[in-house]
Order: sequence, then C-alpha cells, then structure tokens
Amino acid sequence: MMKRVMLPTCKRTKRYLFTTNTVDIAHVSNTAKSPSINNTKPPTAVVFMNMGGPSTVDETNDFLYQLFSDNDLIPISKKYQHIIAKYIAKFRTSSIEEQYKVIGGGSPIRKWSEYQASEVCKILDKTRPLTAPHKPYVAFRYAKPLTDETYKQLLKDGVKRAIAFSQYPQFSYSTTGSSINELWRQIKKLDPNRSVIWSCIDRWPTHHSLIKAFASNIKGALSEFSEDVRSNVTLLFSAHSLPMDVVNTGDAYPAEVGATVYAVMKELNFSNPYRLVWQSQVGPKPWLGAQTLEISKFLGPKSHGLLFIPIAFTSDHIETLFEIDKGIIEASPHKHKFKRCPSLNGSDIFIKGLADLVKEHLDSNTLYSKQLPLDFVLGKSNDPITHPSEVFGDHSKNLIKEEEKN
Amino acid sequence: MMKRVMLPTCKRTKRYLFTTNTVDIAHVSNTAKSPSINNTKPPTAVVFMNMGGPSTVDETNDFLYQLFSDNDLIPISKKYQHIIAKYIAKFRTSSIEEQYKVIGGGSPIRKWSEYQASEVCKILDKTRPLTAPHKPYVAFRYAKPLTDETYKQLLKDGVKRAIAFSQYPQFSYSTTGSSINELWRQIKKLDPNRSVIWSCIDRWPTHHSLIKAFASNIKGALSEFSEDVRSNVTLLFSAHSLPMDVVNTGDAYPAEVGATVYAVMKELNFSNPYRLVWQSQVGPKPWLGAQTLEISKFLGPKSHGLLFIPIAFTSDHIETLFEIDKGIIEASPHKHKFKRCPSLNGSDIFIKGLADLVKEHLDSNTLYSKQLPLDFVLGKSNDPITHPSEVFGDHSKNLIKEEEKN
Repeated sequence: MMKRVMLPTCKRTKRYLFTTNTVDIAHVSNTAKSPSINNTKPPTAVVFMNMGGPSTVDETNDFLYQLFSDNDLIPISKKYQHIIAKYIAKFRTSSIEEQYKVIGGGSPIRKWSEYQASEVCKILDKTRPLTAPHKPYVAFRYAKPLTDETYKQLLKDGVKRAIAFSQYPQFSYSTTGSSINELWRQIKKLDPNRSVIWSCIDRWPTHHSLIKAFASNIKGALSEFSEDVRSNVTLLFSAHSLPMDVVNTGDAYPAEVGATVYAVMKELNFSNPYRLVWQSQVGPKPWLGAQTLEISKFLGPKSHGLLFIPIAFTSDHIETLFEIDKGIIEASPHKHKFKRCPSLNGSDIFIKGLADLVKEHLDSNTLYSKQLPLDFVLGKSNDPITHPSEVFGDHSKNLIKEEEKN
Repeated sequence: MMKRVMLPTCKRTKRYLFTTNTVDIAHVSNTAKSPSINNTKPPTAVVFMNMGGPSTVDETNDFLYQLFSDNDLIPISKKYQHIIAKYIAKFRTSSIEEQYKVIGGGSPIRKWSEYQASEVCKILDKTRPLTAPHKPYVAFRYAKPLTDETYKQLLKDGVKRAIAFSQYPQFSYSTTGSSINELWRQIKKLDPNRSVIWSCIDRWPTHHSLIKAFASNIKGALSEFSEDVRSNVTLLFSAHSLPMDVVNTGDAYPAEVGATVYAVMKELNFSNPYRLVWQSQVGPKPWLGAQTLEISKFLGPKSHGLLFIPIAFTSDHIETLFEIDKGIIEASPHKHKFKRCPSLNGSDIFIKGLADLVKEHLDSNTLYSKQLPLDFVLGKSNDPITHPSEVFGDHSKNLIKEEEKN
C-alpha cells in the first residue's frame, strides 16, 4: 500500500507522494521556489484552526449564524440548515451578547490564537531553518478570520506549504472534522489548481505541550488553596460535552479527552482526587455526562475544595469566562471553596511545546494521523470530504480512485 | 491531615497507620508474628477480585442470581432486589446456559485467575522476600469462590496482611466498587475484630503489565492478517459498556478505559487506525456507545480488516468467547476479515507485570488510590461503605470520626 505515485498536478517540480499519510515534506519544502522577487523562500504557513468567537459584541449574531449553519456540528437539516440557523441565531443573539458583555465585550480567543501562532513561528524559525520562514495564520470556523479570508491571505503571501494545526487537542468530527471539511470547500473554491500543499496536525491529546502546561497551571492554582486542604481539593477536568448521538457514532473525542486527563494526572503524580466531567450541553437531547454543573452542586457541600480545569480548549472563551466563572463558581453558595485553573493562553511551556509539536510534525513527514480516515468514515456530515488524502497531500481525485482500485 | 494515629484494635503489635491512604506496610509485615507453630511468618495474601463466571453450566443459575442481586451493579430495588433477582435469573438461565455450553461448558475465568494469582505469588516470593510467603486467593463477586468462602480460607491460613487486587484494570463503582462493598460486608461478618490488615489495588489502567501485554498480543494477532492489509486493519478496542445513568454519576470507568486504549496505541506507535467501542448492553435504557456490534456492522463492508481487542477484562469470559467470537465475528458476512485478539490469560508479560504491580503497591505503602474516596462519594449503592478507610487500614470507626472532626 506504500507505493510511490507521481503527482501530476504539481507541474513545477516533480514531487513524489505516498498514497497513504506520509510525504517527503522536507523535499517539497527544500525544492519549492518562491514566485516573489529576490527568489527568497516562500513562507511555511502555520494555520491555527479553531471554532473562534466574536471579538466584539457586534459580531455575536454572525458568529451564531455560522455556528448553527454547521451541519457537522449541529445536524439540523440537509436542505434548510442555513434558513433555520438564521432564525436560531436571531433568537439567541441578545442573551449571548449579554454574556460577551459580561466577560469584557468579546471573546479573547482571536487575540490568544494570533499570539500563540506568532510565538510558535518565531521559535520554529530558529529550531527548523529548513522550512523557515514560518508565518502564523488563524482560521476560525465561526468567527473572523474565517477560513476563506485566511486562505486568500495565504495565496497573497505566496504560501506553497501549509500546516492545518487543529487547536482542539482531542479530535471530534464536530470540531476538527468540521474545520477540515470547511478547508476542503475553500480549497475547491479558492485554490482549485492546488498551489498550496497542506498537511494536518489533527490531534495531540497527550503531547507534552499540553500535559506539562496543564500540570504547571494546576500546581499554580492548587497553591492558592490553603495548605491544610490542598491535597484533598478535587480536580474537575471539564470538557465540552457531545450529544450522545454523536458519541454513539464512534467519535474519537471522549476517549482522547480521557487520555489527556490521565496523562495530566500522571504528570502530577496523582496528587489529588480528580474526575472528568462535561459541560455546555444544550437542548433536550441526551448528552454525555456527568455534567460539570451537577457534579459541582453535588460535591460542593461535601468537598474541601473544587478546582475546575477546562481540558479540551487551550484558550479562554465564553465556556470558561462565563459558563464556569459566572454560571458555576459565582452562582454557587460554596464559591469560597471553588477556583478555576487559568487557561493555557500565553503560557510559555505551552507555546514552546506547540513549536516542538509542529517541528515533530514536519520532521515526521506525516500528512495526517492514521486515525483521520476512520474519523471521516464514521462522522456524519452534510458536505464531507470522502478521504483526508483529498485535502492533505494527494491532490488528485484520479489518484485516489487509482488507490481504491488497488 | 497526615498525622499518625494508633490503631487500638490490633492488640498484638502496636501499629501506626496514617489516617489517609498511606500506611507503613513494611513495618506491619516485618513485625507481624504468625500464630502457627515454628513461628514462621504468616502469608501475605494476594486476593484477585473479579466478577467471576460459572465454572460449570450447572452453576449458571446461582451466578445469575448473585449478579442480579447486586444493587451496586444493577440498581433494581432497595427492598425487593433479591426476590426480583431470583425471577430474572430463573427467566434467563436456560439461554445463558446454552451460551456456556457453546464455549465449552463453563467460564474459564476461575482457572485463569487461579493460575495468574499463583504465578504472581511465586514471582513475589523472589522479588519481595520482606513480605514472603505470598499466597494466592481468588474472590469472585458472583461465582465460586465468593468473597465469604475466600475470607474464611484467609482466616484459616492465618493471614494478617491481604491485598485486595481488583482484576478490573479500570475502576467502575459497579465492578471494583461492588467488590469492595462486598468485602466490607464480609469483614463485618467474619472478621469483626479485624485480624487481617487490608490494602487495595483499585485501578491500574495504564500499568505496563497491561499495556505491554496488550501490545504484544495485538502485534501477534495483526501478524495473522495478510501483509498487504495489515497496517490498515482497524483495531476495535471493546470494553463492557455502562448504562448512561451510571456514566452520568461521574463513574471513573469511561475515562480510564480511554486512557488504557491511548497508552496501548502509543506503545504500538499508532501503527493502525483504532477506535474504542462498547459491548454487552442489555435492556431498554440508554448505554454508552458506540456499540461494538453496530460499528462492526458499519465498518465490516468498508474495511480491510477488523481486530477486536477486549480491553477491560484480562481473562476470557462469555463476553469474549461467546459475544465477540460467536455473536459478532461468526455471525458476520465479513467474518473472513474479522479476528479477535487473544485475552491476556496466561501471558508471561502480563503475569510478570502483575507481580511488578503488587511489588510497587507494597513498596509504596499505599492503602488505596487517591481517587477511591471520591468513587464512593459519587457511586450509588444500596449498602455502601462510607469511606475506603473503613475497609483498608483505618480499622476503627472512631478513628474515622476523629479524622472528620479535625
């Protein structure tokens, strides 16, 4: 299955790609010539993909419309998704606007993502000169900058090689899967001749960037509890929940979140009691539990202290700043015993780790993980890619068909 | 919280125990004197706890009665559980008997458990002479030998120090929790003066015993697929499911199973696509999915091959030998592409690893994990212990009360 095939669409240099998930990336980066003056190398794009959030209160309606339009995230209707999304967004805008006002007038996720990506690229320029210069980009699924805007910028910057770096450490078809489906739609629209070679970091649930940064932040947060209760504080790792009908498709997310939590606890030498809980469920359908709010209500009166650790997002967003800080902690009669662990945001350990992760990805010559094709077989979508090789590396449908024949 | 308190119930030697989950076990084992002739040391009991299964077809009804009587596993009724259990067992016996006939006339779990425990003790006698001799025991929750029978044997053998070693690698309140509740009932009945000091290995989801043994068996099973499809075979890690109302209490099990699966895949260098799926759900209530059977039906026609890996039991039992082998693999039109990975059973890597695990437990002076008290706060039971310290180490209710006061 690992035979080499010639890629006919890349005319400038003859590039050999594996039909599976590896590629001779070093070769590609080395030989690709920039179209710009002075014959300098084109930048390697490091594209942070995430859901995003409205940077200002005024962007809330647009954000909600994009969110409810996403059939991969919320499968409403194949035909009428956009129309229904418009109504739901309109209906919910004012209450969500209030939440963004309370947390300071918008989501900080763009600010953090731009900062993280930019710092990562600075480090990579030193640690991996082969692919330098590295240029930071952000592509959000539901807020500015959206994928199409970012893709246009990539093309303008003469990018030939880009890494789609999912900022969801654990893979869900409804998050990273949705971002990849959207990337594919924009490739078809904006770059049909495939001038950009893409690869993907699609999951990193136990990478040291994440584990060491979480452990460090948890230790810091625990030190704020008084010494006599510190070792008995219960760590509540809180992840965004999924509807059970998504869990039951075999979505990778719940097990990968479990792996993250266990790795963090191992790093902490299992210093404290802990539990994985799930937040942000909406609507009448059953979602994966136990629910963060319910468990905090139950444990509140019994426990020495509760530390909430958002474990599936890396930057602050409304689910930490509003839902946990205001909705759970401030609203509790036991709030004097409750604290939230800071999100990773600008953590040095985290950012250095992310740069290692991108370097390891480039060094590995891997286009995407061995799991990703299975994620797209099991996931349900209105407008899906059929195989990750369409998006990452194998830029020709004919090649895929040829592969299927063999 | 880590102050030393004197244990008034142990009269022969003054033993000092921590009120939390550590104890000076080496000290205990060193100073305890055997009541037998020749003043030889009493054995250290290594008690393998598991659900068990009927060793002969005739024991099926008793097994089912015990199983459905367990309110920790299947909460039916506080008052009428035993009566209802009798009827359900009667109703289901003949069909389950048929299944045991098909797999060779009974469950092999007793044979494997006795073999594993005995080999582990042989190794421990060499690697940890301080606590030698080590004596193997098996205590099943629903089949012979039941906990009361084993406890009587322990007392007859003059055991003063015993390790309750859960053979469920991942903790669920409905499995390990139930075994601990039962152990407590038998302590109160058979050993009210606490002549045996107990500690507990209550979970070991990523211990090398498990991870290396699974990885080795998976490599062996993969080698039976033809070379051209081998790296594309999907690994379906199949664990016994839980009802969602148990998952939603915050049961530790789903996340710990996720941690096991990820650790095994890391050990295998993520060589194959994989997924965690859940089997054995019964009744009309919602259970945690994706279901093993459903996913295998869906992937069967699309995949190069499926390898089923039972990931939450370590020995063969009806869920592997009947449910997977007969119910899923043999019944599938794609059975030529399906294989099951052998259970750990008599694996040398596994057994040597288990001996390491017991040695590490003894060396650590730990009575139980930091998680266990929380498991008993969150778990729902008809007749629960209130705190693991009742069972393990802190043998006096007064001491617990004293601890609560401070």
